[in-house]
Amino acid sequence: MSLVSVKDDEVDIVIAAIQPDLTSFLEEWRAVFSRFHLIIIKDPDHKEELKIPGGFNYDTYTKADIQRIIGTSNAVTFSGFSCRYFGYLLSKKKYIISIDDDCFPAKDNEGNQVDAISQHINNLSTPATPFFFNTLYDPFRKGADFVRGYPFSLRSGVSCALSCGLCLNLADLDAPTQALKPALRNTRYVDAVLTVPARAMMPLSGINVAFDRELVGPALLPSFRLAKEGKFRWETVEDIWTGMCVKVVCDHMGYGVKTGLPYVWRKERGDAVESLKKEWEGVKLMEEVVPFFQSMRLSPAANTAEDCVVEIAAAVKEQLGRIDPVFTRAADSMVEWVKLWKTVTTQT
Amino acid sequence: MSLVSVKDDEVDIVIAAIQPDLTSFLEEWRAVFSRFHLIIIKDPDHKEELKIPGGFNYDTYTKADIQRIIGTSNAVTFSGFSCRYFGYLLSKKKYIISIDDDCFPAKDNEGNQVDAISQHINNLSTPATPFFFNTLYDPFRKGADFVRGYPFSLRSGVSCALSCGLCLNLADLDAPTQALKPALRNTRYVDAVLTVPARAMMPLSGINVAFDRELVGPALLPSFRLAKEGKFRWETVEDIWTGMCVKVVCDHMGYGVKTGLPYVWRKERGDAVESLKKEWEGVKLMEEVVPFFQSMRLSPAANTAEDCVVEIAAAVKEQLGRIDPVFTRAADSMVEWVKLWKTVTTQT
Repeated sequence: MSLVSVKDDEVDIVIAAIQPDLTSFLEEWRAVFSRFHLIIIKDPDHKEELKIPGGFNYDTYTKADIQRIIGTSNAVTFSGFSCRYFGYLLSKKKYIISIDDDCFPAKDNEGNQVDAISQHINNLSTPATPFFFNTLYDPFRKGADFVRGYPFSLRSGVSCALSCGLCLNLADLDAPTQALKPALRNTRYVDAVLTVPARAMMPLSGINVAFDRELVGPALLPSFRLAKEGKFRWETVEDIWTGMCVKVVCDHMGYGVKTGLPYVWRKERGDAVESLKKEWEGVKLMEEVVPFFQSMRLSPAANTAEDCVVEIAAAVKEQLGRIDPVFTRAADSMVEWVKLWKTVTTQT
Repeated sequence: MSLVSVKDDEVDIVIAAIQPDLTSFLEEWRAVFSRFHLIIIKDPDHKEELKIPGGFNYDTYTKADIQRIIGTSNAVTFSGFSCRYFGYLLSKKKYIISIDDDCFPAKDNEGNQVDAISQHINNLSTPATPFFFNTLYDPFRKGADFVRGYPFSLRSGVSCALSCGLCLNLADLDAPTQALKPALRNTRYVDAVLTVPARAMMPLSGINVAFDRELVGPALLPSFRLAKEGKFRWETVEDIWTGMCVKVVCDHMGYGVKTGLPYVWRKERGDAVESLKKEWEGVKLMEEVVPFFQSMRLSPAANTAEDCVVEIAAAVKEQLGRIDPVFTRAADSMVEWVKLWKTVTTQT
């Protein structure tokens, strides 16, 4: 099936600068990133100056910019991995792609360097098929189609709002798993994209992700912050929470979520055993979070992503708030984020 | 994670002999099939003698055997592709694997011949994870695990009852799709197995399939027979119907369904344009069948696969019967099949 063409100026690549020196990261991605606009947000906890090589089209934002825009409120925080959400808030583009700064371009099974941006855009600009599973994966990929038995009425699909990419080398495992299997590396390049079926929840990794800002932008939000969260992914679950929030919104609004390609190559960083001391909080909370989102149903009155987030926040407060204060803070953050989103996006 | 060991005598390979001369088929599969017991059912519409090369451990069944066992009832028919179900009925083994006689062993991305039997057994003997989607596919495959955010309480998984394999070369498309794209061939070997999430329906292809007979045997049944169905897969939908029936049973009983590996190499057979004249019936009926199974919920009283099938049959008759007589016949067939299953399996 033919691919929809997307203009370069419909895309923002948002980079959370967890490490201030982005030289090697951006040099590795130069061939892929250089024709797009970048929004680079410096982790507000860092003091050093950003280092960005020449030849890129970018805007950078620091702690001072964050404070100027969000004012004195501290319900929404943008420190660590969450600084990327400030970029999501400022972008005016249809598509946003975000890749962690410890990831490099991967190679496919033929040894070719993967263009992660094109693959994400392709996922987002071709339909998703959440209402029936196609056993040959994405029917809109070249060389693929719908299999026998797939209802013709469902073959036009729906808009794809979220594209979840994957990692080679250091997979996105939690600290306990990585600590138990220190030598485990993901070497399997699975050449597939699939739509996660409606009503099925999945753990989104924020490491390598893209979304349609016009459809679900307000649902990509920084809200689920662990008390002792640090600067390693396995110490955080904010992206997992956000992913389920977006999935519930997509299921309600009739949009699709795809997972699979593109892969990125993720470098080593951190010490799993050391992080394990903090990570158990996130791991334990998932036992409450997953059933909550699995049973979450939005009212017909929720007609926009903003409405959906506000409804989810109310349910979080009511159903989860009594279990742990982290949930009450998350609910407050979600409400505050939607206000911020409305304020910022109505400004020109 | 470690693999469960399965003894060779826990497996029956059931072959529906649509073509009576199985020489080239079995020679191609010799290395893979020869240590297992085969049940070969001759399509009762054929008159010629079966040709089976030496060196295999097998039992064959013909029209006379079918008539002897099922008696005078004609609610259940075993002609064409459906003759394999007679083998399912007679098997006493835990695992049944069935591959169409126009398929040969496939090669993986490294050029190694795929052992489809081992892969199916591996799928069935390791847990499935239907209650949360693991983005790195089957966490029980070597080199894989659960990703960050996957609840620990769900990591032991559930029993896998059905393993749906795929086809390279001639994919299992319907006649309209193949007629529109006569040159389309599936060349993409996707090195993945995944659990189809609970409550998501998928179109099972009976071309290359395996299941746990003890868990869901009675739900693998010949019931959805089109009036003008012929001897090409794209003229049939019996397996698609059966697949959704099994999926509903698995969702209700808490079992999992996996799809992906193993691939088989499917040869060309038939003329899609010619078949198109018959196929539209099946294509049209899917528009009713898919929503029916998607909304089907079984009562807590349904504690066995047999009970589930009887409940589904009643709903088919009530909800779909008025739309087309094919549904009433299917419902009758399902009830009759369960009776037959009980009779045959209680005999020693």
